[in-house]
Amino acid sequence: MCNPVSSSFVIGFLGAGQLARMSALQAFRFGQQIAVFSDRPENEPVQFMTPHSYSGSFNDVDSMLPFAKKCDVITLENEFIDSDILAKLQEKSGTPIYPSPKSFALIENKLIEKQTFENAGIPVTPYKSVKTKDDLILFGEKYGWPYLLKSSKGGYDGYGNKTVKNFKDAQQGFENLGGNKGHDIIAEAFVDFTHELAVQVARNETGIAVFPCVETVQENHICVAVKAPAPVSEDIQRKAQELAQKATEAIDGKGIFAFEFFLTKNGKLLLNESAPRPHNSGHYTIEGGVTSQFENHVRAVCGMPLGDTSLTNPAAVMINLLGTHNRECRFEFSEKAVNQPNGHLHNYGKLQSKPGRKMGHYTLLGNDLNKIYKTALKLTESIKI
Amino acid sequence: MCNPVSSSFVIGFLGAGQLARMSALQAFRFGQQIAVFSDRPENEPVQFMTPHSYSGSFNDVDSMLPFAKKCDVITLENEFIDSDILAKLQEKSGTPIYPSPKSFALIENKLIEKQTFENAGIPVTPYKSVKTKDDLILFGEKYGWPYLLKSSKGGYDGYGNKTVKNFKDAQQGFENLGGNKGHDIIAEAFVDFTHELAVQVARNETGIAVFPCVETVQENHICVAVKAPAPVSEDIQRKAQELAQKATEAIDGKGIFAFEFFLTKNGKLLLNESAPRPHNSGHYTIEGGVTSQFENHVRAVCGMPLGDTSLTNPAAVMINLLGTHNRECRFEFSEKAVNQPNGHLHNYGKLQSKPGRKMGHYTLLGNDLNKIYKTALKLTESIKI
Repeated sequence: MCNPVSSSFVIGFLGAGQLARMSALQAFRFGQQIAVFSDRPENEPVQFMTPHSYSGSFNDVDSMLPFAKKCDVITLENEFIDSDILAKLQEKSGTPIYPSPKSFALIENKLIEKQTFENAGIPVTPYKSVKTKDDLILFGEKYGWPYLLKSSKGGYDGYGNKTVKNFKDAQQGFENLGGNKGHDIIAEAFVDFTHELAVQVARNETGIAVFPCVETVQENHICVAVKAPAPVSEDIQRKAQELAQKATEAIDGKGIFAFEFFLTKNGKLLLNESAPRPHNSGHYTIEGGVTSQFENHVRAVCGMPLGDTSLTNPAAVMINLLGTHNRECRFEFSEKAVNQPNGHLHNYGKLQSKPGRKMGHYTLLGNDLNKIYKTALKLTESIKI
Repeated sequence: MCNPVSSSFVIGFLGAGQLARMSALQAFRFGQQIAVFSDRPENEPVQFMTPHSYSGSFNDVDSMLPFAKKCDVITLENEFIDSDILAKLQEKSGTPIYPSPKSFALIENKLIEKQTFENAGIPVTPYKSVKTKDDLILFGEKYGWPYLLKSSKGGYDGYGNKTVKNFKDAQQGFENLGGNKGHDIIAEAFVDFTHELAVQVARNETGIAVFPCVETVQENHICVAVKAPAPVSEDIQRKAQELAQKATEAIDGKGIFAFEFFLTKNGKLLLNESAPRPHNSGHYTIEGGVTSQFENHVRAVCGMPLGDTSLTNPAAVMINLLGTHNRECRFEFSEKAVNQPNGHLHNYGKLQSKPGRKMGHYTLLGNDLNKIYKTALKLTESIKI
């Protein structure tokens, strides 16, 4: 790998969405060039940011080779490419991929992921691999209805998940998720929680940098807002940070990772999900952190020393800006939000909006978490996209 | 113009260097696309950031037309394109250019610039248009030797300037600057100053945003460091901000502007130079300001409301990182600087380094200006580029 703080250094992104886009902005700050590989030929956010744009199939190593050969290091913005494919791409191209295919192999399958973290002593949401009718019934009897069925691979933002209220539901869900076609399905208990928390961790050979513990506010399994720091005791915040650090070490992670936890009614932390990439729960760090998750992402995969993860202000909130219309993307009625001191509007550069699509986000910094949360909601509620 | 907070909006940069690069990063944050026109065919910093890259001559309107037609708005990173050319480009392409060709016409020639600001009641460095031997002698007799000879057009960072110690020097300088070939030359008195100060101002139809007054530390007419806020009385800071605002209004500026002042030994402020673009003295705002000069540049030329110009920390210092070698750009021995909490390294992505070339900068934030200035100098002194 050539010197990462060199202007001929090329960092490659597999995936051309907003996560790669925000990391790319940091790579540019370090003087690097970027390359991007997408499974769509054009009009993805990062494709507008570089002359080095490639497309093809994420399942076809050879179609990714020209891209990989252009890069000094490759990273990812999602976890949906098979670790086998990544390993082959790394071998054929000679370009290192971080997080490593080995790390991916430990988390790409939800069952293996849970086992990996359990083995490292990290409490996870109660779960079971389900294969038969009896499994579906027994899980409901043991942990109560409703519970969740999840496809072991490929789920995000509620896709690939199904809440099941009774046995009939469970059978239907199992079938819909491909259980009858041999897809691995796991059942997961509903957890009675007071807060959903998240922690980002950057790690490489120079060290580890743990970001603050934040609260994620979810609606229909989609994160709609983030509060930093999480409005829970410092003790719980610290505990979540410790578990996140442990989880990163358990997969020998090099890169940026996010871990989502449930804080149960009786004050217990359960690891719910992990992501080997920048995460929606860390967008607030762009202005709210001394170093953003995206900067530490770039630093981590390039082997640079990691940056300070302190907050720049006592409090930060992030509001996701979801599409409201089926139309060409344009932000309307965003003037109030843009005009707010310490308010920061981000537009991901997606050409097409659709209801519910993540089109941008808004971060507001301040001293009083509750106050800025209310202000941010108010400033963004009328934005039409 | 289509909605500036739209993903199909294209902001165009005339010039592909670091100033355009840092503005482009902000445009991306707003979801915009960028286009760039350079007089060099390849390998300029912004050319690595977009598939919409054009090249040709800054003197040839037709060679700029395809670029201009691609853009929704055009802005500049230097003041070396004739205002006539800009006016023609705007007319032929139908794409608005900001700052406007009219604003450029008022400052592209140092003589007209000084007259414009003087007429607006802004004190400027004593100067005179010089055309003859007698002019050269008389100026020296009136204001003392040495004094400065400046070419009316095209100077920056000491290029196009000549310090003259006596009449012989003055004759030589006059000739070297093209005075004998009809170039307009002005003589400028040496000012006995205690500080060189600078202020950025963003302005458009929605309002005006004046940045803090900072001190620029110069060596051989090149800015090597910036201290924010300037270590002078609040009264002087405010006065400089008022003059900068007045100067922006005097040229009906739409965009981002920088004004450099001398603070004389007897406490007077004299306007020395102006720049109708982001300026080296404002780089500290990327992390040191709630809104950076680059963000307010993009906001201003797109007609968006302007952002808060407050400091994020009590103090910020910026150190220019100049090339130390003739070689392919790589930053060596920068680990300490990168590793410093609240320290931010910027590499402009230039492929080729040469001694004295501006290759990047380093910003350090903190509470005590003197302390962080010393720390920043120490952290950057061993960097080799």
